[in-house]
Amino acid sequence: MTDIARGLQGVILTETHLSQVNGQAGKLTIAGYPVQELAPNASYEEVVHLLWHDRLPNEEELLALTSGMAAERELPGATLDVLAAAAKQGLPPMDGLRLGLDTLSLVDENLSDTSRPANLRRAISLVAHAPTIVAAMWRLLHGKEPVSPRQDLGQAANFLYMMFDNEPHPAAVRGLETYLNTVVDHGMNASTFTARVIVSTRSDMISAVVGAVGALKGPLHGGAPGPALDTVFALREMAKTSGRPIGEVAHDWARETVEAGERIMGFGHRVYKVRDPRADVLGAAAEKLFERTGDNQLYEDARACEAAFIDVLDELKPGRNLRTNVEFYTALVLHGVELEPPIFSSVFAMGRMGGWSANVLEQIEDDILIRPRATYVGATGRTWVPLAQR
Amino acid sequence: MTDIARGLQGVILTETHLSQVNGQAGKLTIAGYPVQELAPNASYEEVVHLLWHDRLPNEEELLALTSGMAAERELPGATLDVLAAAAKQGLPPMDGLRLGLDTLSLVDENLSDTSRPANLRRAISLVAHAPTIVAAMWRLLHGKEPVSPRQDLGQAANFLYMMFDNEPHPAAVRGLETYLNTVVDHGMNASTFTARVIVSTRSDMISAVVGAVGALKGPLHGGAPGPALDTVFALREMAKTSGRPIGEVAHDWARETVEAGERIMGFGHRVYKVRDPRADVLGAAAEKLFERTGDNQLYEDARACEAAFIDVLDELKPGRNLRTNVEFYTALVLHGVELEPPIFSSVFAMGRMGGWSANVLEQIEDDILIRPRATYVGATGRTWVPLAQR
Repeated sequence: MTDIARGLQGVILTETHLSQVNGQAGKLTIAGYPVQELAPNASYEEVVHLLWHDRLPNEEELLALTSGMAAERELPGATLDVLAAAAKQGLPPMDGLRLGLDTLSLVDENLSDTSRPANLRRAISLVAHAPTIVAAMWRLLHGKEPVSPRQDLGQAANFLYMMFDNEPHPAAVRGLETYLNTVVDHGMNASTFTARVIVSTRSDMISAVVGAVGALKGPLHGGAPGPALDTVFALREMAKTSGRPIGEVAHDWARETVEAGERIMGFGHRVYKVRDPRADVLGAAAEKLFERTGDNQLYEDARACEAAFIDVLDELKPGRNLRTNVEFYTALVLHGVELEPPIFSSVFAMGRMGGWSANVLEQIEDDILIRPRATYVGATGRTWVPLAQR
Repeated sequence: MTDIARGLQGVILTETHLSQVNGQAGKLTIAGYPVQELAPNASYEEVVHLLWHDRLPNEEELLALTSGMAAERELPGATLDVLAAAAKQGLPPMDGLRLGLDTLSLVDENLSDTSRPANLRRAISLVAHAPTIVAAMWRLLHGKEPVSPRQDLGQAANFLYMMFDNEPHPAAVRGLETYLNTVVDHGMNASTFTARVIVSTRSDMISAVVGAVGALKGPLHGGAPGPALDTVFALREMAKTSGRPIGEVAHDWARETVEAGERIMGFGHRVYKVRDPRADVLGAAAEKLFERTGDNQLYEDARACEAAFIDVLDELKPGRNLRTNVEFYTALVLHGVELEPPIFSSVFAMGRMGGWSANVLEQIEDDILIRPRATYVGATGRTWVPLAQR
């Protein structure tokens, strides 16, 4: 009997130059840079350049990339039509994103040109259009007209501008940009893997990214940053009503929850056996953001909840080492830039677009069809019986 | 150094009850039935029922399924709009199919209902709509209005009706139906695997099938049945001009081609080390089809070419055992029902839709996230350098 690699757990597919996840040490590096150094300092465009070309851009290269992206943000009419139809049906934002990205085939200069320069142009188009699609879908879902993109803003700033039809606060731009950088790539996750499998047949980058969004949609992958924050809000309310400190309330609630066999959202990760390094980066980003934009108390309360949860988890689940994962502080940062939970997965996808496109470019170099096998365990030796005799 | 499973070759992902590919013996069974028994006898609806429920339907069940599908064939307005835009841009039919299927999210009763009954309804909708999308895209690409589906015809007959706006010949219906059944499922191929990876995140069936079409688009997967037939046509012409028997002409051409280091299209397969069993089924289907609908000489000529090619391949590539694969007779059967090569991949996808949906249903039962790992081989220890210093 041959071994079955269920879920492909532990199977090594390929070598990569893009990101390195060290779950035991709690380290994430993006093309050799520790995420905590890169994410809060770089613009999203710089990080995407790093992934595509394996080095940070100089000023001239960065200007070429930012202006190239800025010029590719407007949505084609067919894309807006599909988003309007999707919003009318009340489809989730992620379905709007998948449908919208799919229609970018309609404005591809030449789908059959699969050279590296053509794929880099395609990657720019995908990264540039994604925020416009996400913002337009959100506004259409809320009965508002989409806001046309601006060419004078970077990727993160322009997204916030299109969401709120307002010049964004620099601290909000930095907060969002740090978030997008933090989630840009993360080893061979399921959506990145999907993109690689699709393009391994020598299919095109748009098909690959559309598939990746389809995979990211799934709750086992895209995660649920919303509920992590809901918990903090509920505990704040309980603290206020009871007049007790939030740390105490959080402690009691966490004990009841864990003793009832339920999960605390935002803690524990399949890969990270220590604290998720992205949580650190986003925690620091949240701290800066809330300092400058107002509600610093929310940040303090979230930290108090986190400390209480970890205390309880260490006591009741000894040895499991359940630590804060990326979701907890994702929720805090995205809330801090005034985004609402139903859009969180789409914003995650906007960030991951840089990693998906880079993985597609890398897979094209590998140029090997990806397909495992299955073992047949069904019926055998059946013979055809005509309908009348069944 | 840990082993890298490049392309996942030889890795066994899971167990399946759907199809069994025995490459050494040249055998393919669909849920326990040898493909050569099932494909020429069953309707496509019967085969799909077999895959979804692991048994052939009785009369009542078959009636429910055929009428259920017949009622789900009309395209939503948004789908027709996208196809019109795609045709206007001259996109390949497969991109039209991917875009069209994607829009079926717009008419899904309740995307968040992921129960098995809801997924079976979704599977019916996908199988039922696919031929309407393919036929509409083809007609729009050729400046013709789409033909509305009929409810009184089966899947295969209705597709030919929508393609040609004519009641199809029963022999053509049988030929196409045998083709669709023959390609309905084939182990863990790249598109089926894509669908499984996507739904393994608990994403939805439409996202999974859209990703699968994206994978099938790639020339390493969807194959190229067109060129196999082009060769036969070119050799017929050479035989006619030179007045020599086509077998001789094919023999000489094959020798020159192989000696020049080029491939003969339609021969050899990654998995089958003997004759592809699907080639037998489709060869027999082509023989019946051409007997009844006319150009029997084309069938004879194709057989003569096949014999000459194998003769030459055995002589010049001894031990390689290069045999006729599914592409060669696919081209003959689809040409026999008057379809043209640019639509072949989309018709393949129509057939495979039964298998994709069945694999998605099976994966949902498995309920395990599919993601392998990658080994990082890129730069290490880089530190952040501000833009001005680069």
